[in-house]
Amino acid sequence: MNFNITTPSREIEPLLTEKIDFLTKPKGSLGKLETLARRIGLIQQTLTPRLSNPHNILFAADHGIIEEGVSVSPKDVTWQQLAHFSHGGAGINFLCNQHGFRLTLVDAGVDYDIPEGKGIIDRKIRKSTRNFLHEPAMTRDEFHLAIERGAGIVEDVAATGCNVVSFGEMGSGNTSSSSMWMHFFTGIPLADCVGAGAGLDSPGIRHKLDVLTRAAANYAGDGSPEDIMSWFGGYEMVMAVGGMLKAAELGMVIIVDGFIMTSCILAASKLYPEVLEYTIFGHQGDESGHKKMLEALDADPILHLGLRLGEGSGAVCAYPIIDSAVRMINEMDDFASVGVIKYF
Amino acid sequence: MNFNITTPSREIEPLLTEKIDFLTKPKGSLGKLETLARRIGLIQQTLTPRLSNPHNILFAADHGIIEEGVSVSPKDVTWQQLAHFSHGGAGINFLCNQHGFRLTLVDAGVDYDIPEGKGIIDRKIRKSTRNFLHEPAMTRDEFHLAIERGAGIVEDVAATGCNVVSFGEMGSGNTSSSSMWMHFFTGIPLADCVGAGAGLDSPGIRHKLDVLTRAAANYAGDGSPEDIMSWFGGYEMVMAVGGMLKAAELGMVIIVDGFIMTSCILAASKLYPEVLEYTIFGHQGDESGHKKMLEALDADPILHLGLRLGEGSGAVCAYPIIDSAVRMINEMDDFASVGVIKYF
Repeated sequence: MNFNITTPSREIEPLLTEKIDFLTKPKGSLGKLETLARRIGLIQQTLTPRLSNPHNILFAADHGIIEEGVSVSPKDVTWQQLAHFSHGGAGINFLCNQHGFRLTLVDAGVDYDIPEGKGIIDRKIRKSTRNFLHEPAMTRDEFHLAIERGAGIVEDVAATGCNVVSFGEMGSGNTSSSSMWMHFFTGIPLADCVGAGAGLDSPGIRHKLDVLTRAAANYAGDGSPEDIMSWFGGYEMVMAVGGMLKAAELGMVIIVDGFIMTSCILAASKLYPEVLEYTIFGHQGDESGHKKMLEALDADPILHLGLRLGEGSGAVCAYPIIDSAVRMINEMDDFASVGVIKYF
Repeated sequence: MNFNITTPSREIEPLLTEKIDFLTKPKGSLGKLETLARRIGLIQQTLTPRLSNPHNILFAADHGIIEEGVSVSPKDVTWQQLAHFSHGGAGINFLCNQHGFRLTLVDAGVDYDIPEGKGIIDRKIRKSTRNFLHEPAMTRDEFHLAIERGAGIVEDVAATGCNVVSFGEMGSGNTSSSSMWMHFFTGIPLADCVGAGAGLDSPGIRHKLDVLTRAAANYAGDGSPEDIMSWFGGYEMVMAVGGMLKAAELGMVIIVDGFIMTSCILAASKLYPEVLEYTIFGHQGDESGHKKMLEALDADPILHLGLRLGEGSGAVCAYPIIDSAVRMINEMDDFASVGVIKYF
């Protein structure tokens, strides 16, 4: 599947800067809000950007690598948490309610028969990936299907009038896949890419690193982005990649969540570097390696709240700051329109 | 004026921790939201804390020290910006609108005849403080009156059902007063307490440091907190101190804004250390010295957005995160109530 992602024209940038500089405040005094307003104005190619119908799309799937004991949470947690999201009492639910996000739940590859009528969209590729210690996690056909299905979900969401989207995930074992993507896509040593996930202790982290080191040694693919994603990825992660690429193609603002979603935008950028022009990094989390991956992406995340929940929580938490930036450029007076001295 | 500020009982703390740990998420995975929920539960002495009717109280006043050329903004900017706030197109206005804050504007000592009927509360002590390079900025009687009037404003605000309050300021020259308070209350060398304010260049900052160094050398007071506040303070700053102390007495949550309001809570804590139990630090700004002052207070601010606007903007920007913390503890399911394995 190909995406047609354009680099936003820079022509409007000086006009955005001029507009922001003439708002009634000392120049630069709204810091990150000014940076964000400029970026969103650039994405939307307008001096009056708008955010409408924000969505958090949460992809869930299981991971074959969990057989190796790399996660503190058993596999059943994936479907149970997905059920929980659909009932409404989880972390992502109160955040979506607070900030007016619609929550879209997608079964990308959960190892459980999710009943119909629970509000969970069925895009299951297969019940769990394979164990990438011994073989590729997914076939190339499955990879392409996951990209397509992720893109399709974003198309549907965009059709509701949404122009700002965050992505979340649920999948026991998926920090392992993310660490592998990070390692192969940045060259950062595996030891710096591996962390506690949902709560491993030190011996647990050592074991996880050992498993992933062996998996890296066993890799026998062609080194292309598609191959690395297929070999080590999760279905929920590849769907997120497809979703991100489609969102960029449609000119939507993408808010990136924590460690796993950062590895997805990193992977997406290996296929289409322009996707980063549409990206806002919401949060730097506590998972070891996240800071280094963000640095590799030259990213300056909005929040540092020590979250490590996933689900899109860090991205949705950051939304009011992004909203503030848009309100700033639309709602503040400028010096020309009020009788305040242009004193800065 | 005396305040009766109690230290919240720690008895409820283990119960708060237990409640938060049993919410459906890996333990500790909501990071700063968990810390904030514990703190607010402690302040309100309940497992179901609530935030109601948030207010931002903005005190404005002029400063005699501005005669020495320590600020890039002329004195008239103080009343003009105050007028602007009352019209609604300034930075603090869109933020208050976004987050449902009432904005209370107070003339604490502006050097201008503010017309009545503009929604600005008249608590003027005097038209501008005196120039503290040569004499105390205010008399001890003025100091006590400002403390009382600040406390009175908070009492009025609390009577509307408000239990969470932020403080903001407007006053050309007030970073100079804040630097002096910081220096005298922390012992940090003046050079590390002085910054660009609304936008001084390097020679401007050097001149400001020179003026403040001479002012510190000229100080001939008794070294008590009241004396340091009176000698170098602003009326808006002392009113904020009085407001903070009253808010703590009433068990309200205090959200601290940037450099100037941090110097006010620092000063308030020199009179009543317990005030810090009611304090949440909203934002670490760009003004040089703010980081060091926060460290001296052992504070861990919620946001780092590079704001340096004042007006309460950093505090109000941080509100949705505080609100998230309260929603988390009230709206999330716990493991007992849902069929999810307690897996962490």
